[in-house]
Amino acid sequence: MSSGNDELVRSDNPDHPANLIPSLCAKFWTLGWVTGTGGGASIRDGDLVYLAPSGVQKELMKPSDLYSDGPIRPASRVYLRSPPVFKPSQCTPLFLSAFTRKGARCCIHTHSPYAVLVTLILEQQGKGKDKEFRINNIEQIKGFARGYPHGEVGNLGYHDTLRIPIIENTAHEEDLTEFLEDAMDRYPDAYAVLVRRHGVYVWGNSVEQAKGQCESLDYLFHLAVEMQKLGIPWMSEIEPTLPTRSLKD
Amino acid sequence: MSSGNDELVRSDNPDHPANLIPSLCAKFWTLGWVTGTGGGASIRDGDLVYLAPSGVQKELMKPSDLYSDGPIRPASRVYLRSPPVFKPSQCTPLFLSAFTRKGARCCIHTHSPYAVLVTLILEQQGKGKDKEFRINNIEQIKGFARGYPHGEVGNLGYHDTLRIPIIENTAHEEDLTEFLEDAMDRYPDAYAVLVRRHGVYVWGNSVEQAKGQCESLDYLFHLAVEMQKLGIPWMSEIEPTLPTRSLKD
Amino acid sequence: MSSGNDELVRSDNPDHPANLIPSLCAKFWTLGWVTGTGGGASIRDGDLVYLAPSGVQKELMKPSDLYSDGPIRPASRVYLRSPPVFKPSQCTPLFLSAFTRKGARCCIHTHSPYAVLVTLILEQQGKGKDKEFRINNIEQIKGFARGYPHGEVGNLGYHDTLRIPIIENTAHEEDLTEFLEDAMDRYPDAYAVLVRRHGVYVWGNSVEQAKGQCESLDYLFHLAVEMQKLGIPWMSEIEPTLPTRSLKD
Amino acid sequence: MSSGNDELVRSDNPDHPANLIPSLCAKFWTLGWVTGTGGGASIRDGDLVYLAPSGVQKELMKPSDLYSDGPIRPASRVYLRSPPVFKPSQCTPLFLSAFTRKGARCCIHTHSPYAVLVTLILEQQGKGKDKEFRINNIEQIKGFARGYPHGEVGNLGYHDTLRIPIIENTAHEEDLTEFLEDAMDRYPDAYAVLVRRHGVYVWGNSVEQAKGQCESLDYLFHLAVEMQKLGIPWMSEIEPTLPTRSLKD
Repeated sequence: MSSGNDELVRSDNPDHPANLIPSLCAKFWTLGWVTGTGGGASIRDGDLVYLAPSGVQKELMKPSDLYSDGPIRPASRVYLRSPPVFKPSQCTPLFLSAFTRKGARCCIHTHSPYAVLVTLILEQQGKGKDKEFRINNIEQIKGFARGYPHGEVGNLGYHDTLRIPIIENTAHEEDLTEFLEDAMDRYPDAYAVLVRRHGVYVWGNSVEQAKGQCESLDYLFHLAVEMQKLGIPWMSEIEPTLPTRSLKD
Repeated sequence: MSSGNDELVRSDNPDHPANLIPSLCAKFWTLGWVTGTGGGASIRDGDLVYLAPSGVQKELMKPSDLYSDGPIRPASRVYLRSPPVFKPSQCTPLFLSAFTRKGARCCIHTHSPYAVLVTLILEQQGKGKDKEFRINNIEQIKGFARGYPHGEVGNLGYHDTLRIPIIENTAHEEDLTEFLEDAMDRYPDAYAVLVRRHGVYVWGNSVEQAKGQCESLDYLFHLAVEMQKLGIPWMSEIEPTLPTRSLKD
Repeated sequence: MSSGNDELVRSDNPDHPANLIPSLCAKFWTLGWVTGTGGGASIRDGDLVYLAPSGVQKELMKPSDLYSDGPIRPASRVYLRSPPVFKPSQCTPLFLSAFTRKGARCCIHTHSPYAVLVTLILEQQGKGKDKEFRINNIEQIKGFARGYPHGEVGNLGYHDTLRIPIIENTAHEEDLTEFLEDAMDRYPDAYAVLVRRHGVYVWGNSVEQAKGQCESLDYLFHLAVEMQKLGIPWMSEIEPTLPTRSLKD
Repeated sequence: MSSGNDELVRSDNPDHPANLIPSLCAKFWTLGWVTGTGGGASIRDGDLVYLAPSGVQKELMKPSDLYSDGPIRPASRVYLRSPPVFKPSQCTPLFLSAFTRKGARCCIHTHSPYAVLVTLILEQQGKGKDKEFRINNIEQIKGFARGYPHGEVGNLGYHDTLRIPIIENTAHEEDLTEFLEDAMDRYPDAYAVLVRRHGVYVWGNSVEQAKGQCESLDYLFHLAVEMQKLGIPWMSEIEPTLPTRSLKD
């Protein structure tokens, strides 16, 4: 059972999680990431977690539609604050994994068609054996933190290879949790996991980082799909271009 | 002849059908679904039906542009409330079929280019014999109710096959009615019917359900067109991935 | 020289041509039709003509940026009303042709990429000899008036073939005028002319009709480009589907 | 160290650089040019330069997020005005090159996927040797100034060939500076430089010109990618169409 605690989702600050989740989701809807009530987003603020509910029209979500809970713990049937209408999202345990295992502050789940197409292309090519999306030598790769969550080591470089693990989809979204956590363990630097024929989970040390990485990733997925149509490989061997002055030095 | 009854389309409530139809259609226009005055939408509120007129610019529609009628009956030339300028939409008898045969509360008709392309691809492949769009193993399939309108049995699962019947287009839109009704009979669980070289009709037990299913369907049509370009089949045989813990249980 | 006459472009009525042209062009900018100051629009109100200037950012245009002139006559260097900054558009004589030869009330010129691609596909296929875009058996064709400007004969039917003449581009836009007028003579029912590697001119008996036909045409060009990628021909032979009841009758 | 000087970025005039850069970047975000904090923009106002910072969400930028400096000089660690949160953009020395070498008033940097795809297509075709994007006989080419910055000689014509040099990407964006300047020297009429696998830099004599040329260029890149998919070459030999009346004259 949920108590009231409606004050948890009431704030005049547009950067409060209860206001940010609706404004982010409305933006994601226009990008085609959370169409048909798919996808979702969650923000952690200290020990408190804010979650979009299941089945909400993402471009019309209101702060009062949100769940809030804390201190962080495995998803239960009891929340500090529940909306009057909706049910909890099946994404909840996956968002919590990002918070507890990776120390993330924000986790975004999209059904981006480009994410799904990338997993389909790899499945088609690799007979289902290819469990990783790889791309290098594209400037936008710099949009990703290296060795998350240790932000101090900076972002990936242009010549680095971005690797995103792919897990197979399950009949029930919550059953993805252990596979997601396994991928997190195998890719300790991961900030995203693709789900075959489903979409992508992306997280970050802050809302800005999670959103920025989600945008950069979708840009790269879009590019990868177009490269595939044009017969251009995703991985390339390019020698670093040395600036003349470093030759002089 | 129509009486005045303008109060039927006047309300301060943004969720009143007379306000919802214009706001939905404006949104659909930005998605490219109702361009060039094509497509339309209708909402049933108890015995009353609200209908977008023919030939209106969908992103500029006003509540006063709507027709309203009731109690529900076969489309006639007389409406409880008619707009001063427009004519009734030829979609009217098709919307009524969704209300009377399926108990729908909302029916949406789009000319989505992806819907049209899916019917063209199947026509091309099947020499016109393929009367059904089929896709499985894509997460967004879960956006559809199973066994509509018996909402209590839940939504389709990831491994289920989504089937949307296709009917051939007719010279006059109202002549589609009997083919639409025939498809409804042959697909008792249907919540949507594709019209070859024309578009799609989607309905639901509520405005939210009709809109959500329409969005999910367009997402899948878009994905299907891209899959076709990439040589990836729409149907696949994928073994359910069992979570480790179910093996333990 | 231009006199002041600024009152010609000042009105509180959003449907006044001086307000409609900016709002239409802002909308067209979001559709990618008038990017980089390309394209334009003109409205005739009785004997008065309102014209977007050359080189204006279409999404930022203001009523005070417009030219106005009348009574209708061949484009001259003197306007009843000129904006303080801009130069007249090279499209001006083409807009006037639509007004004087076809009795149009509104003429829209876009650089839509789909329009350009359709002319490129036909050039590629026909070695430059194919001077006409043809498509049939697509519902959106009904968005076009038949036998313009004799609106009373209604719109094209689903089984009709939509034919849009194509003229070759010229180095100077105003030199297109005689070719446009020649196409108007050869296609007396025309409401649009494609310009190879350039874009399209679309007109109508009213602003609503010109805009609606422009949207429907762009929808069909988009569809045609996708059909070409998928190997689906634009013209098809489809037997009308007879409704059962007409067989009974 | 930066002094305060916050008045440099405070103005009620929407055309003030401190207000224009945020409104431009928000617009560019909706076009997919500056996703994931990528890309940027800078405006010069006399001796003063205004710069978007590194790592800002481009659709949410505020005037107070901007750097300002002057008189123009090589990028230093000291700015007349610095924002409280962000770091200087690595694009800064490249923007300054456009201002000092070309006399530009505005320089825009995008990660447009179409720009990146064009450089990938040419790399694929030319084994990395093709250092120039070329296209002719498309009307939108007229959107570019000829012989920049000598605006008085007018814009490119329809039959002219638009040439945009391509430089190879470097690991660090600031190391692009000398290659950018070298391309500027080799293409004295250039108003844009493509960066392989990265994006494009576009400048102009005014904000309007830089933005217009950036839009026209993206339109042409989009068209070029679609032409490639359809097997249509970017360069063509087309004889100018002479208007009949010039034959008579």
